[in-house]
Amino acid sequence: MKTYNIAIVGLGNIGLEVYKNLLKNKKNILDKTGFKINVSHVCAKNFKKNRGVSIPKKIWMANPLDLPKIKNIDIIVELIGGSDGIAKKLVFASIKNGKHYVTANKELIAKHGDKLSILAEKNSVNLLFEASVAGGIPIIRSIKQGLVANKIKHIYGILNGTTNFILTEMEKKGSTFAEALKYAKAKGYAERNPFADLSGNDVACKISILSSICFGSKILNKDFLVEGISNIEILDILFAKKIGYRIKLLGIAEIVNNQIKQRVHPALIPADLDIANINGVTNAVVVDGEPIGRTIYEGAGAGKGPTASSVISDIASVMVGNDDFSFGLSPAAKKNYKLFNFRQHVSKYYLRFLVHDKPGVLSIITSVLAKNKISIQNLLQDPSESSLSNVMIITHRAMEKSIQGVIKILSKNKKLFKKIVMIRVRDESKL
Amino acid sequence: MKTYNIAIVGLGNIGLEVYKNLLKNKKNILDKTGFKINVSHVCAKNFKKNRGVSIPKKIWMANPLDLPKIKNIDIIVELIGGSDGIAKKLVFASIKNGKHYVTANKELIAKHGDKLSILAEKNSVNLLFEASVAGGIPIIRSIKQGLVANKIKHIYGILNGTTNFILTEMEKKGSTFAEALKYAKAKGYAERNPFADLSGNDVACKISILSSICFGSKILNKDFLVEGISNIEILDILFAKKIGYRIKLLGIAEIVNNQIKQRVHPALIPADLDIANINGVTNAVVVDGEPIGRTIYEGAGAGKGPTASSVISDIASVMVGNDDFSFGLSPAAKKNYKLFNFRQHVSKYYLRFLVHDKPGVLSIITSVLAKNKISIQNLLQDPSESSLSNVMIITHRAMEKSIQGVIKILSKNKKLFKKIVMIRVRDESKL
Repeated sequence: MKTYNIAIVGLGNIGLEVYKNLLKNKKNILDKTGFKINVSHVCAKNFKKNRGVSIPKKIWMANPLDLPKIKNIDIIVELIGGSDGIAKKLVFASIKNGKHYVTANKELIAKHGDKLSILAEKNSVNLLFEASVAGGIPIIRSIKQGLVANKIKHIYGILNGTTNFILTEMEKKGSTFAEALKYAKAKGYAERNPFADLSGNDVACKISILSSICFGSKILNKDFLVEGISNIEILDILFAKKIGYRIKLLGIAEIVNNQIKQRVHPALIPADLDIANINGVTNAVVVDGEPIGRTIYEGAGAGKGPTASSVISDIASVMVGNDDFSFGLSPAAKKNYKLFNFRQHVSKYYLRFLVHDKPGVLSIITSVLAKNKISIQNLLQDPSESSLSNVMIITHRAMEKSIQGVIKILSKNKKLFKKIVMIRVRDESKL
Repeated sequence: MKTYNIAIVGLGNIGLEVYKNLLKNKKNILDKTGFKINVSHVCAKNFKKNRGVSIPKKIWMANPLDLPKIKNIDIIVELIGGSDGIAKKLVFASIKNGKHYVTANKELIAKHGDKLSILAEKNSVNLLFEASVAGGIPIIRSIKQGLVANKIKHIYGILNGTTNFILTEMEKKGSTFAEALKYAKAKGYAERNPFADLSGNDVACKISILSSICFGSKILNKDFLVEGISNIEILDILFAKKIGYRIKLLGIAEIVNNQIKQRVHPALIPADLDIANINGVTNAVVVDGEPIGRTIYEGAGAGKGPTASSVISDIASVMVGNDDFSFGLSPAAKKNYKLFNFRQHVSKYYLRFLVHDKPGVLSIITSVLAKNKISIQNLLQDPSESSLSNVMIITHRAMEKSIQGVIKILSKNKKLFKKIVMIRVRDESKL
C-alpha cells in the first residue's frame, strides 16, 4: 500500500488547517482512497511562530524551492499565493521534477494555467486547483467529472465573498459602502488591502479558470471587462430594491456566436432569481449545460475550513489518480476561442446621474439618450437637500457602445454632471 | 488507447438518451477522458419499436442476461429498474463476470448495495449509480470526492420532483391535491401509477443511499419513518403559508448520539429558508460537513437529459478509473450504525383536526394536549359552511411519542374527530 508524502508550502490560516485536517483524517482518507498519507515536509518563513499546534522540527523546510528536488515527496501543496515570484518558480520546478501539484492560487492558474497543464501532462503529474474558485464548493470537480457528458453554454455566479458581504450589508442595514467595508474588515471577511476583491480582479481570475474548464478553451485572462463595486452607493442599492432588483457582483462567461463572452461586473438581477438571495460570504455558481439543464452549487466562498476541504479533495484525487487533465480535457484539445467584443453587448442599463440641480438637466439627459436611440423604462429624480440631486434611469435594452457613448458625451459637461454611475441590468428570462 | 465497450440495457427515454449522447459525444469524451467508447450492445424487449433513431441490428440483444458472459463488454449500463427480477440477476452476474456496472436503479442499490459493493471490490470492478439520486445533480460524486476531507453530520433535501411539483402547484395556484396530481400526470411529471413517488418510497431509497455514503454506514433501508404527501390538503398549505412556512417533502439523515436519524416526511419549513424556494420538479440537497460547512446542490431531479448526464459521468469515471468504492469508502470500513428511535424525535408539530362542530371540541383537544405536556404556539379554527370545521394548531417543541399518543387518544373519538392530520415542523436555526 503506497504512502503519499505531502509537502505543504505556506502555513497561514489555510495551510495550517490543511496540515491539521490531514493529520486528524489519516484513517478516514485511507478508508476512502485506499492510500496512506504522510505530511513529510512543511515550509513557511518562521518556524518559531506560535501556531497553536506542534509541528515537528524535522519536517520543517526554510526554502520552498528546495522541495522539488527532494526525492520522496509525491505532492506539493502551495498555499502562498501570487501569480509570480516564488509561487511561479515553485510550480514550474515541482512539475518538471515529477511532483503532483495542488494549489489554491487563482492568480497563478489564471495566468500560467495553459502552460502548466501542458507541462503537467508531459511530466505525468496532476496539477489541481479546486480551492482556487469558490472556496469549498466542489465546482471544478463537478464540471470536469459530474458534467462530463455536457456541452456547457453558460456559467455565472457570485464568486467573491468579500464583495457579496459588503453588498448584503448595504442592502440589509442601509450601511454606506465605507461602513460595510469597515465591518467586513472587522469580521475578517476583507483583507487589509481589499483591492483585489473590490476591483473585481479576484473574480476575474476565477471566471477565467471556470470558463476555460467549461468551454474547453485556452484561458482568456485579459482584455475582458472587469469592473468592481467601489462605485456602488447605498442609493443605487435602494433604488434597485424599489423596482425589484438586487445588485450582485457577478462573474459571467457564455458562448455567443462561437466566441466567449466573459466579464466581471456588478449587475442588477431580479430579486426573485434564486441567486439574488445568496447573501453574506456565500458563493453560488450556476452552470447551464446540455443535456443536464441548469444546476446550481452553493457554499462558503472562502475561509480556512472550506478551502482546506477543497485542497484535500485535490490531494485525494491525486492519490486515486483520477484527474489527469487539469482543465478537464487534454491540453492539446483546448480550443482557441476569441473574446466577444463587449461593445456589442445588449442589455438594460441602470444609470445614475449626480447632477447640479439646474433647469434643463433632465431635458439634456433625455435628449442625448434619444439621439442614441436609447429609450427609458424607469426614471426617478431623487430630491436632495443640497444643490445636487440624483437622476436614476433604467433603460430599455440598448447596446453597450451606445451607453458608453452617452456617458462620454454627458461626462464632458462638468457644469451639470458631477458623477455618472452605470450598472448593467441582467434580467434575461433564462438565468 | 483502450476502447471501452458499453452495453445499454433498457431503451426507454433514458436509455435512448444515453445511447444518443454517447454516439454524439465520442470525440468530446475522448478529449476529456483519454479513452474511446463504443456502444457494443443494446438490449430492450422490442427491436422494431420506432424510437426515432436507427440502431444497428447487429448490436441488438434480446436477453440482457446473456450480456455478462460476452467477453468484450467492459461496462454494463442498466436502465430498466426494480430491486429484484431481471435487474438483480443482471447486476450480480455482471459483477461476478468482471463487468463494470452503471445504473440509475435506486431500489436495487438501496436494497442490495452493501452486498454489491463488496462483490464489486472483490471482482475489481466499479459499481456506480450517480443517476439514482437527484437526477442530474452530481451529488454522489460531490460527496465522495469533493467532500472527501469532511465529516458529514447532516444531509437533507428535496429529492423527488413529482411531489415537489404537486406541492408547488397547490401552493401557487391553490389547486387541490387531485388537480395537481392530474396536471403532473398530463405534464409527464407523474407516472401513471405514482405510488412510489407519493408514498415517499422513492425518497426513502434515495436518502438510504445518501446516508450510507455520507456517514460511511451500512445501508439502512428499512424500519425508518417514511411518510408521503397524500394526506396534505390545500388548506394545510395555505395555513402554513399564512404563518410563514412552506410544506416540502424532505428526505433527512443526520448523526445524533452516534446513531443515524433518518426519515422521509413532509415538513413545514420557514419560507425564507433557501430550499423553501425550490419549486416544481427541481431537486436540492443540503450537505453539512466539517470543515466545509453547508453546501447546497440544485438541479433537475429527473428527466432524460439530466439522468443521462449522470449515467455518462459514471461511465467516464469507470474509464478514468477513479471510483473504486461505490459508497465512497472501502466496504470493509463501513460502520454498523443503529437507527435513532424516532419516537424520541423533538420538534414543533402542525396538527389539523377535522371536527364535527359541537360544543366542547376545542376544550377536549386542548386538555389532551395539556395532559401530554404539549403547549400550543398557534391555533386557528377555520369556520366551515358544513357541520365540519378544521382546527389547526402549531405546537411548541414536543416529543414524537407524545404527539402520537395525543393523536391515538383523539382518533378514538369518532363522534368528534373525522380526521387528524399531522405534519412535522422543521425550523431549527441551523438548516
